[in-house]
This record gives sequence, structure tokens and C-alpha cells, in this order.
Amino acid sequence: MPDKLPTAPVRGTRDLLPAECALRDEALAAILRTYRSWGFARIETPALEHLELLTGGQGGENEKLIFKLMKRGEKLHEALAASAGAAPAEDALADCGLRFDLTVPLARYYAEHQSELPLPFKAIQVGPVWRAERPQKGRYRQFTQCDIDVIGEAGPQAEIELLLATTDALAALGLAGFTVRINDRRFLLAFAAHCDVTTPADQERLFIALDKLDKVGLDGVIAELEEQQLRGRLMRPHLELLQKASAEDDPLARFEPMAWAAGSLGALRGIAASVRAALGAAARVAVDFTLVRGMGYYTGPIFEISAEGSPGSLAGGGRYDKMIGRVLGRDVPACGFSIGF
Amino acid sequence: MPDKLPTAPVRGTRDLLPAECALRDEALAAILRTYRSWGFARIETPALEHLELLTGGQGGENEKLIFKLMKRGEKLHEALAASAGAAPAEDALADCGLRFDLTVPLARYYAEHQSELPLPFKAIQVGPVWRAERPQKGRYRQFTQCDIDVIGEAGPQAEIELLLATTDALAALGLAGFTVRINDRRFLLAFAAHCDVTTPADQERLFIALDKLDKVGLDGVIAELEEQQLRGRLMRPHLELLQKASAEDDPLARFEPMAWAAGSLGALRGIAASVRAALGAAARVAVDFTLVRGMGYYTGPIFEISAEGSPGSLAGGGRYDKMIGRVLGRDVPACGFSIGF
Repeated sequence: MPDKLPTAPVRGTRDLLPAECALRDEALAAILRTYRSWGFARIETPALEHLELLTGGQGGENEKLIFKLMKRGEKLHEALAASAGAAPAEDALADCGLRFDLTVPLARYYAEHQSELPLPFKAIQVGPVWRAERPQKGRYRQFTQCDIDVIGEAGPQAEIELLLATTDALAALGLAGFTVRINDRRFLLAFAAHCDVTTPADQERLFIALDKLDKVGLDGVIAELEEQQLRGRLMRPHLELLQKASAEDDPLARFEPMAWAAGSLGALRGIAASVRAALGAAARVAVDFTLVRGMGYYTGPIFEISAEGSPGSLAGGGRYDKMIGRVLGRDVPACGFSIGF
Repeated sequence: MPDKLPTAPVRGTRDLLPAECALRDEALAAILRTYRSWGFARIETPALEHLELLTGGQGGENEKLIFKLMKRGEKLHEALAASAGAAPAEDALADCGLRFDLTVPLARYYAEHQSELPLPFKAIQVGPVWRAERPQKGRYRQFTQCDIDVIGEAGPQAEIELLLATTDALAALGLAGFTVRINDRRFLLAFAAHCDVTTPADQERLFIALDKLDKVGLDGVIAELEEQQLRGRLMRPHLELLQKASAEDDPLARFEPMAWAAGSLGALRGIAASVRAALGAAARVAVDFTLVRGMGYYTGPIFEISAEGSPGSLAGGGRYDKMIGRVLGRDVPACGFSIGF
């Protein structure tokens, strides 16, 4: 008998035992039942995607975590030979990658199939996504996402429907005591400009640092900004105000009078009011100006839901009105919400 | 707006529209319901597997079709630098691969989790597998397999249960008029030895050629054998006999009297009789000595099911008693059946 082979799954991935699988299947069935009752229909895209679609600045930090598939046979040999001596460029050796989320593939799917789809199009997607995270972070390199998206609806009706349907799906899992946190990328961009952070690259850095606020605290964020040469100390009063306002009963009241912020807060107030009215005592609906979401593709409202007794957020999403345009050649408004498990 | 990106899925893969997805979900639910009623329980393994598990001669032709995942960052740079000038070996650049079936990962899974699993263990697996087929063959590079396996049962009871449960599942899809074809790798090995094909590598080549009999005919198989320097012309009478016997009412009667074949036909007669008795008029149960199945890991009975009105075979499987031993260090009998769609 030859040497024994590894029995553990590939680092950062996991096997599911029968009992775990049964729980997962039941949960997924409950979520799908709920989403179908809200008028969403399931679609599927392949796990492999074009590299030029996965890269290109839309996926934020996740673009650094793409698993790339090596070219095979003749094409690999050609790519290696072409570099003759020098190290070949990483992307010359790969011809596609594993998707890191279900939103980027959905944009391609919509561009390809729009003539066969209703408008607005309400899609469910369930499937694995892959991110080459450092395993010490305690994250899995393969996990399942269950997404709903509304494509072709520019107004806040899409956001409200996504928030209510997702809360409904989480309630169907037996969860309760929800907190819905919402913010708006347009507010964050206005805030960045107000802080004299004006280039898209610097703004992205500011948002990535801000996203860590709940983990590293204000001092941690400021240290990261300084490291990124973003004059974090000068931003301290502004950042403190974000944090403070978010903890208040009516966070919007603090910023609405300010000229730089006023134009970016209309959607936020409308969504918060509608969702609060619809969910009543089932959820606390909080405008949280420190909520960022990692993806670079968001253009408007962004949101997360957490539940009592479950650590972290259970679902996250937002509006991405510019992504389909990258593939289709004309913008189509779109908004989505993702449960990860 | 930047240049438009590709909208078609990656070559050889496909998107599912809502109506296709609904059909697929309904079919899958019917299959799972049937398999659960037969006492099988669902498990899951990750899409990524260790390369040393995927390679190693168990997967036959499929091993040439593995999508390999490129190492990332520092490790990729090291691998490229280590080759300094010369082209680096393909496997030095990759650290894992996408599974090409669900059986090889199941062997690893069983070796890892056996102490937590019942004996015999009756597993259901559903999930995507990937094969870098040439697209002109009209095959998909990503497709779904739905497998059931019985682990820890050495006797023909496992084969009979798999054949009946899978026929039941296909009937639940509304299919009818089944043909169950069975053969045994031990017979094929005895046949190869009888033809003076004695090394495992040559036997594998003979089986790969024989597997194409229904597509290329006897002359095609013989041409391929000649090309492989396997004296195909000398084998013609033997091959003709295989084909002729398989078309007879009792194919076993032809070979059972022959000393070289006799020892390898016992399981086949028992399984054929039991399945024939259980399925009655629902299926034609045929011993087909030209049935091969591509995988190198089969060690005993192999089988396929087709249905009237559906081209090709709908499901295939067999016994692989030596595979778990490669990972676990001791052999455990195992047998599985896979529906592909």
C-alpha cells in the first residue's frame, strides 16, 4: 500500500457531517420558501468566471483573494515559455478564477440574458464562493452565499423589499431580535470629501479603515489612516462625530442640517422610516454612519442585519447601480442582499 | 465607461435561466426524497481537493482534466523563482485542484470522519464537479453530480440497493423503460490477461479503447489498440466474442464454462438475478461485457442505467474497494452510483 494521503480537507475548507448537512438543508429550504413567497426566482451561474470580470476594482479587498485557475497543457507551456527567464506575470498563467461573490457574476448574467428576463428582475442565487483568506483569521475559504437581488428598480422600493424579505427569511430560521443597520455610500463619499479625502483610491482606503472601527476602535482606525498617509489625526473630530451620531436616537438629525451631507441623506431617511414601520417591534432599525461594507461596487444605500444571540452580521447588501453597465454598456439600477453561511 | 466585458459564461460552462433552475430544483428534490427514503443521508465536501488525492491513477482519463488552482502571492513567486530560467513543473505552481468527481473526495471524507459515521455508511452527495474537457466534445466543464454510496458493505447487497434506489429515483423524475447494464472489472481484467495484456498500464489502455466501442465500433477500437501498440488485430476474435455474447439472452452462459472467466462472474450473476426479480417489467437488466466506465478506481461490479427517450446513460457507478485504503491505510469496501446532470 502506498504512503497515506491527507485526510483533512484542504486548509480553510470544511466537510459537513450528516447532521450538519441536514440542518443546512432545512435552513436553506426555509430561506428559499420565504424568498419565493416574495416573488424571487432562482437562477444559477458557474463557479468559474472571467478574470477580467472578477478584477477591475469592483470587489474591493476580495479581489486580492481570488483563486485563479491555471492554464492547462499547451497554453500553460506557451505562457511559461513566453516569459523566458523572467518570472511570468501571474495573470498570464491563469485563464479564469473562482467567483468571490454572487453579485459580480449576476451582472454578467443579466447582461447576457436580459432579453429573456422580466423587468424588474428578482433573482435568488445560492452557491459556494471562494476567498483565499488567511486561515488564521478564522474564516472559511469556501462558504455558501444565498443572495436576492432586484435589478431594474431605481427607487428605494427595492431596498425596502430586500430588507423585509431577508428579515422574513431570517425569522423563518427561528432567529429574532433583529438589528437592521443602514448607511449610504453617497453619504460616505460626501464625508470623505468633507475630510479632504478626494481621490477614489484614498476614499477606498478611508472606507477600508473605517470598516474596522467596531474591531479596532477609533484609535486603531486613526493609526491605520496615518499609516496610509491619510492624516488620520486631523480626521479624528470628524470620525468621532460619525461614531457619536450613529449612537443617537435620530442620527440623521445631526447631519441633515450640514450642507455637505444634506444631499446624500434623503434615501436613508425614507428607507429607515418604511422598514421601521413595516417591522415594528421585530427589529431595531438603525442608521449607522460607520457601516461601510467591503465591496467597491456599492453606489447607494448599504445595509446589514444581525440578530440577538448570533455574533456578527447575518446578512449584508446594498445598491450597485454602476456594475451592470461595466458589462452591458449601459447602466441598469440594481440592489442586492446576501446571507452567508 | 470602460471597454465592455464578456457577457457569455466561461467557455464550456453555462448559466441557468429561472425556468431551467426551477426544473433542476424540482428534479433534485425528487431524487433526494427518494434517496432519503432508502436510508441515505446527505454529506458535503469542499470543491477544492489536495492534488495528491486527485492524481495518483484513480481517476483514469479524468486526471488529465483537472482544473488546478494556482498558488498565490509569496508562494507563487517562490515556485516561479525556484525554477530560475527553466519552465517550472506544472504541479509546483498549483496547491490544490477542483474535484472531477464526488467519489475521490468521499474516500478522504470517510478516512477523516469514520469514527463519527455509522457502519455501513450510506451517503448522498450533490454538487458541482469540474473537468477541463475540450468544448468541441459538447460536454460541460462544470456539471452537477448526485451520488449515493454504501461504505463498509462487501457483499452484493450494496450493489443491489444502489441499483434499486437509483432506478427508483429516476422513476420519480417521470422516466421509464429502464435498461440496467452491468459488468465486472474482475471479468475485464481476466479478459485482458486472456488477451495477453498483462501490465496495469496496458490494461487501462485496453479498457479506455473498449469504452469507445459503442461510439467508434469494433474497427475503431482495434485501430486505437494498434495505435497504442496493443496488437488489436490479434484481439479481434476476442473482442467480437465480447460484443456477441453481450447481445445474447444469457451472456454469462457463454463465458461461465471458460476457465479464465469463471472465477470473475459469480457476483455478476447474483446481482443480475436479484435486480431483475425486484424490478420486474420496469427494467431490462443486461450483462454487457463491453461496459467499462472510465474511472481507474473500480475493482468489482460496474453499472449504468439508461431510459427510453433519454440519450446515453443517466447514471453510472461501481465498486471501489481499494480507494479508501489509499487514504485510510486499511481497505474498506465501498460502492457508489452517480446521476449526472
